Amino acid sequence: MEDKILLAHGSGGKLSHDLVKDYLLGPLRNPLLEAMDDSATFELFGRIAFTTDSYVVTPLFFPGGDIGKLAVCGTVNDLSMAGAVPKYLSLSLIIEEGFPLLKLNKIIDSIQKTAEEARVVIVAGDTKVVNRGCADKLFINTAGIGVIPKGITISAATAKVGDSVILSGPIGDHGIALLSQREGLAFETTLASDCAPLNTLVGDMLTVSHKINCLRDPTRGGLASTLNELAGQSRVGIAIEEEKIPVNEPVRAACELLGFDPLYVANEGKLVGVVASGDAEKIIDSMKKNRYGSSAAVIGAVVADHPGKVVMKTRLGTTRIVDMLTGELLPRIC
Amino acid sequence: MEDKILLAHGSGGKLSHDLVKDYLLGPLRNPLLEAMDDSATFELFGRIAFTTDSYVVTPLFFPGGDIGKLAVCGTVNDLSMAGAVPKYLSLSLIIEEGFPLLKLNKIIDSIQKTAEEARVVIVAGDTKVVNRGCADKLFINTAGIGVIPKGITISAATAKVGDSVILSGPIGDHGIALLSQREGLAFETTLASDCAPLNTLVGDMLTVSHKINCLRDPTRGGLASTLNELAGQSRVGIAIEEEKIPVNEPVRAACELLGFDPLYVANEGKLVGVVASGDAEKIIDSMKKNRYGSSAAVIGAVVADHPGKVVMKTRLGTTRIVDMLTGELLPRIC
Repeated sequence: MEDKILLAHGSGGKLSHDLVKDYLLGPLRNPLLEAMDDSATFELFGRIAFTTDSYVVTPLFFPGGDIGKLAVCGTVNDLSMAGAVPKYLSLSLIIEEGFPLLKLNKIIDSIQKTAEEARVVIVAGDTKVVNRGCADKLFINTAGIGVIPKGITISAATAKVGDSVILSGPIGDHGIALLSQREGLAFETTLASDCAPLNTLVGDMLTVSHKINCLRDPTRGGLASTLNELAGQSRVGIAIEEEKIPVNEPVRAACELLGFDPLYVANEGKLVGVVASGDAEKIIDSMKKNRYGSSAAVIGAVVADHPGKVVMKTRLGTTRIVDMLTGELLPRIC
Repeated sequence: MEDKILLAHGSGGKLSHDLVKDYLLGPLRNPLLEAMDDSATFELFGRIAFTTDSYVVTPLFFPGGDIGKLAVCGTVNDLSMAGAVPKYLSLSLIIEEGFPLLKLNKIIDSIQKTAEEARVVIVAGDTKVVNRGCADKLFINTAGIGVIPKGITISAATAKVGDSVILSGPIGDHGIALLSQREGLAFETTLASDCAPLNTLVGDMLTVSHKINCLRDPTRGGLASTLNELAGQSRVGIAIEEEKIPVNEPVRAACELLGFDPLYVANEGKLVGVVASGDAEKIIDSMKKNRYGSSAAVIGAVVADHPGKVVMKTRLGTTRIVDMLTGELLPRIC
């Protein structure tokens, strides 16, 4: 087999089958995928969560992860934000002609490793190849199915006045780690992306309380955009305090240098929760025991004032409106 | 709003929300999508089919369809080939910066129209924008979930010696229709792609018989590659007769001109079935009543000889091995 992707790898013929056999079925091996039918089939009973995301991140490899890890974590996290236990993922690749098979191999290995950590199985797949110059190296789509345990209803529309707003850890790591890898923008920092599967963190939270009304991972658009979505969909106000929002020092330094606000920088391993205030403490305690929530904190509250808007008390003691991201900070961050 | 896609439409911020609200939620309107949560949630009970495909077809608009119609039909058909009733689809767009919003609008309308015909609902979505030159206009991914009625087991691995091989209609229309649209290759023909949702056709077949062992839609790689997959996965031989395989005259003419074999040209609205021979006639009768199966026919049989191989009796009375596609006839056919 050639050491680069050829157009014929996307033909649906012999080379397509060889590619799937040698580079996908091998590392991702499981009975559902190996059936090689047009659909995977399995039994499901109850309330289901279903989501999809395409990943176009550049560069493909970055400190703390790669497009493969991101593609599994992103979809696992979207399922987790519905309170679901992620179960089955699909994996669809759009590959540029000439892409090195060695890199594909590394990315598929990373997908499998992350899927194992998140306890999900890749059960369905697709591979397309486009001519050189018609795509930038590799795009990945994953869709996912999870099962929502009985008694759990989590939605962006169910935040209630009086609820506490919690954040699982420092913001901006993913965006700044990526930026540091991009051509001509190398900082002297060892900052890594926070890219991580959050299903165990959500599982730990739900073990101690079912009074979790909203969960969302603040990816593109950052914490600010996510809080605005929650405020808008629940028609409530959200008040946060700047000094309670953790930001790692390299992120703060990079943001100051570049004029970025960390509130708008993407995260790939953090979650925002809106929970009954009486349960906030025990939820935070449960999060702190999980490796992905060790610096969880209450950062604010849901308020009756200014419905649909997010207001922040700054370090200086003033308050300001925190709007949704306008424009685009960092294209192709995920 | 600008009349072209901007990078900021993929930011996760304000313009992303405007794009989703104005161009996606409007036409695709349904309560599950409108919840705008990270995952769609719904109840499912029983045996499920789950599949995904990315679509990179060029040109985006072609006689008989467009990338939107194709993206719905392709996934609906993959679910149907498991005997499932397609229910829920996800929709993920990778858009090149500068793509005209008017064209996006047309494609989303086509998606909605096709989804209505196939009785599926788009419940989850994602939109990414990449810089100009980093993707070719628009790529679409759909994933789908269907429910398999009790008592139905259809798989590429269950063809049995003695079974009849059936084909729902003439082959090669999609591939040749696309080719005719590509730059510099205009034929004098009105040939349209056969792109169609086949769920009602499969439903009609299953109404008259459950002795349908395999179903597959011969897309990339054509009828020849699909029959080879069935022979390989079921470890049986397949014997077909050339004169029983319908080919529309413009397809035959184009193939002769270009030196193509219609057996390898892609279809997007045809299916191959392997069924108990005793039920073949009534299955064919049920197909002929459906608009997408009006020229259904038995084209061959499953045999004990040459397991894993497909052999064709030609019009001249000779026999030849029909191999899987090698190389690539027409890149980006779907």
